[in-house]
Amino acid sequence: MEQKGDLLTVREDVRVLDATIRDGGLVNDFYFSDEFIKALYEMNVKAGIDYMEFGYKASKEQFDVNKFGKWKFCNDDDIREVVGENNTKLKLSIMADVGRCDYKEDIHERSDSPLDMIRVATYINTMPQAIAMIEDANKKGYETTCNIMAISNAQEADVKYALEMLGKSPVDAIYIVDSYGSLYPEQIRRISDMYLSTTEKYGKKIGMHAHNNQQCAFANTIESLAVGVSYLDATVCGMGRGAGNCALEALVGFLKNPEYRLDPILKFMEKYMVEMKQKSVWGYDIPYLLTGLTDQHPRTAIAAVKDEDTKYLDFYNMLLDRD
Amino acid sequence: MEQKGDLLTVREDVRVLDATIRDGGLVNDFYFSDEFIKALYEMNVKAGIDYMEFGYKASKEQFDVNKFGKWKFCNDDDIREVVGENNTKLKLSIMADVGRCDYKEDIHERSDSPLDMIRVATYINTMPQAIAMIEDANKKGYETTCNIMAISNAQEADVKYALEMLGKSPVDAIYIVDSYGSLYPEQIRRISDMYLSTTEKYGKKIGMHAHNNQQCAFANTIESLAVGVSYLDATVCGMGRGAGNCALEALVGFLKNPEYRLDPILKFMEKYMVEMKQKSVWGYDIPYLLTGLTDQHPRTAIAAVKDEDTKYLDFYNMLLDRD
Repeated sequence: MEQKGDLLTVREDVRVLDATIRDGGLVNDFYFSDEFIKALYEMNVKAGIDYMEFGYKASKEQFDVNKFGKWKFCNDDDIREVVGENNTKLKLSIMADVGRCDYKEDIHERSDSPLDMIRVATYINTMPQAIAMIEDANKKGYETTCNIMAISNAQEADVKYALEMLGKSPVDAIYIVDSYGSLYPEQIRRISDMYLSTTEKYGKKIGMHAHNNQQCAFANTIESLAVGVSYLDATVCGMGRGAGNCALEALVGFLKNPEYRLDPILKFMEKYMVEMKQKSVWGYDIPYLLTGLTDQHPRTAIAAVKDEDTKYLDFYNMLLDRD
Repeated sequence: MEQKGDLLTVREDVRVLDATIRDGGLVNDFYFSDEFIKALYEMNVKAGIDYMEFGYKASKEQFDVNKFGKWKFCNDDDIREVVGENNTKLKLSIMADVGRCDYKEDIHERSDSPLDMIRVATYINTMPQAIAMIEDANKKGYETTCNIMAISNAQEADVKYALEMLGKSPVDAIYIVDSYGSLYPEQIRRISDMYLSTTEKYGKKIGMHAHNNQQCAFANTIESLAVGVSYLDATVCGMGRGAGNCALEALVGFLKNPEYRLDPILKFMEKYMVEMKQKSVWGYDIPYLLTGLTDQHPRTAIAAVKDEDTKYLDFYNMLLDRD
């Protein structure tokens, strides 16, 4: 596969998306202070980030609003309280999970909403519902992406079929999601190439959402970029479920476009993330390595880390069904 | 450049070197308990690791033996106390720094020593001394490597010249050393390719020693492997100066050769490294990212982390001379 640009090139197709609230919210049940969210928004504006994801549009029928912070639900009014009219270049997004979002009611017309983009997260077997949601959001005036989760567990033929379906849909970008943090750079380059070549004829952009189980989140993100992926997810200090995500500070340090600025991110981190890291736990740890290595959902690793269970060999035996 | 093998290939040329004592010793001034060292040795034997590096052969004229643990000096007798006759497949190495090692006196004949390999660490401008040390060790019967440090700050023409000099020397392997953790996977592939093609005619092997400042230590190691590098350095839990190194547990998890076994490493980590991590500090942190990004020695970052100085923007301004 061909390399697109080199280390000194400004790639105009790049879009950086800050997913700190959404993926980080999985660490603290979305209980962020209003001050934190406001400062994060201002950081993103100053740092020249392209998109900021506020959280999920989760169904209030399915989830108890008293058990989560407000960014699991992302009411338009709550977002407006932070961004006002958002007269900035920063675009705003939320994530809508297939089967966990009352999208017809809860996602309003774009003209009535502070949001710019709806990101639909789906497993491969619920692709028809995902496309229905994408079409709904598109009709309401939004940019859309489709984030196909857990592809490391899916058949390549099924992924290709899904990409063809999405190619014919109005979706703007399709994300490679390494949900289990199980993929290595050479696999990411190959998968990126497959996504790009399959959807080229439809003019879709490709995105990368990486997890850090095997310490490859940042490397996988810049390697996908090198072969032509353009939508790049990251979070401040890599804050996110389990092993966390691609660190925004590393990504912005890497990108050569002078529109992106590291200084506001450094300032935000010293003011807010030092404290945040004392309150919440995320990032590379041995149980996450092991679920990544065995290509499994991190839930068992999250439980082990929470319980401070450091019996790593027993844990690995359990993952491998070696009893 | 061509890919050598794929994710399912056993590459018979691969040699894994555990540098936990040597690079980890820079974190705790080489004060490891005897029990720890013995257990690490047994772990390496059981895990099928190819080389274990015990530490430095530092000059006792230059360094006060009362200010460091014994593995900064690596007396043959101290090593023998751990390994006995070392009737195992595991080979033993030490590192000898140019200008900091009385190699003529302190490195004995291989037949009188428990050691198998001498690794000579040098900056590019002290290459003639390095080659004198390599020749000395070779004559004494040892395998040798040359670890050219800080190449991210060197001119490519100088590196090529050094590689030609080493090509004509008796050295067995030449290491790419990303001392500042400043290099990205695509640079590592290019540099690996340059090292390999320059030294091919001399039949030298190439090695990789990575640092984790930008969270690329593991990714850079496996990417160098993918293009033909065969000597791979790693440390348990990535223990090493500053941001640390490629994590041995991630590397062994990745390698497909069944001779390498993860179980003994997991057992060792749960018994020794959980406690070690409470006593000593290493691993990715923002100051290390910033020295990596600006391609500088990590000493200022090590001081900042030690002082718990989280004024990241001031630190970055200092690195960039922005006053």
